Amino acid sequence: MGVKLYGFPASTCTARVKASLEEYGVEYELVPINLATGEHKQPAYISCNPFALVPAFQDGDLTLFESRAITRYIARKYKNGVKDLLKESDAAAGALVDVWMEVESHQFNPAVSTIFYQTFVIPFFGGTPDQALIAENVEKLGKVLNVYEDRLSKSKYLAGDFFSLADLHHLTYTFYLVKTHASLVNSRPHVKAWWEDISSRPACKKVIDEMAADAHASK
Amino acid sequence: MGVKLYGFPASTCTARVKASLEEYGVEYELVPINLATGEHKQPAYISCNPFALVPAFQDGDLTLFESRAITRYIARKYKNGVKDLLKESDAAAGALVDVWMEVESHQFNPAVSTIFYQTFVIPFFGGTPDQALIAENVEKLGKVLNVYEDRLSKSKYLAGDFFSLADLHHLTYTFYLVKTHASLVNSRPHVKAWWEDISSRPACKKVIDEMAADAHASK
Repeated sequence: MGVKLYGFPASTCTARVKASLEEYGVEYELVPINLATGEHKQPAYISCNPFALVPAFQDGDLTLFESRAITRYIARKYKNGVKDLLKESDAAAGALVDVWMEVESHQFNPAVSTIFYQTFVIPFFGGTPDQALIAENVEKLGKVLNVYEDRLSKSKYLAGDFFSLADLHHLTYTFYLVKTHASLVNSRPHVKAWWEDISSRPACKKVIDEMAADAHASK
Repeated sequence: MGVKLYGFPASTCTARVKASLEEYGVEYELVPINLATGEHKQPAYISCNPFALVPAFQDGDLTLFESRAITRYIARKYKNGVKDLLKESDAAAGALVDVWMEVESHQFNPAVSTIFYQTFVIPFFGGTPDQALIAENVEKLGKVLNVYEDRLSKSKYLAGDFFSLADLHHLTYTFYLVKTHASLVNSRPHVKAWWEDISSRPACKKVIDEMAADAHASK
């Protein structure tokens, strides 16, 4: 049995896992999960992800969910002398990767995912975005990105002068963010340079191009 | 230079790190940070945690922040033949620890931290809790705990039949949760048994007793 990823290309969390697989050149099968038909709420899928969220992941007998745990598994399994996106063998470097992965989870993600949900998901289903909530989270995200700007003025990437999962985890929401709120990134020169760098990596570019094509096809 | 933890005992995120230090019997100095005087917003502290949040952590020349990254560093550094709270040397077990650590971060924490903030922090500063927001998050947390109940009917702890950081990360918010919303835990027999188990571990009990004493002293 090979590696299977359950989800769809436009999904930010599916694409986060895809980016880690593409970075390591891992062959995998993307098994489409159709949210419109409620496939994620069926027992077969719930047995893979009990929270009924995409993605889920299988490697042989092992089933995982939560995108950031899956990327960590992939980075640990496929690391090699050329590429190691976790640096766990170096206690200090590995700890800084963890710090900035947690920053993404607890400082960046709550604000950016709210902006994404209001800006893309609600209109897709015919609803009206809550502009006050968007404005509140744009302000919060701006403060978070001020810290990033300072950090990225001192090191090329978040955890140091090496690309890591901490950077990769930001890829997919930032892709959507710059479509509607580009100034949050472009007004901060070091954040802008970092975004241009990570989004132009061949593996990352492939994934966000596929996100864009899938999001466009769903319109 | 020894291990220093900056924060205060009643802080959920400070106590999360304390619990990992106590589990491994690591000697450390707790350096108090006084939020009331704005000490966390002073340059000396911002240089340790640029988000002006507690805790921060120093081990010699290495400075870390984000409690869940600090506990991971501690678990990796001090693991031994008797205790290993990450199980990174076993790919499958380690991945399941990561899955349930991410579940804590992305499913449990957003709801429980909102309930905590509304129930304890806002009244402490003389404000009025938003009861509708509490009710909404109690409902969300109940659904999350339904998944926990199912999971804990199949394994003693979240990642399997071994206590791990995935369990430990739930300690401090659940301590506060059961003071005001005990039925969320007690109405689910496996969640109740799990909570009684983890909260009675000597290291965990010491930390939550110190949380209680500090929270009481701050009243």
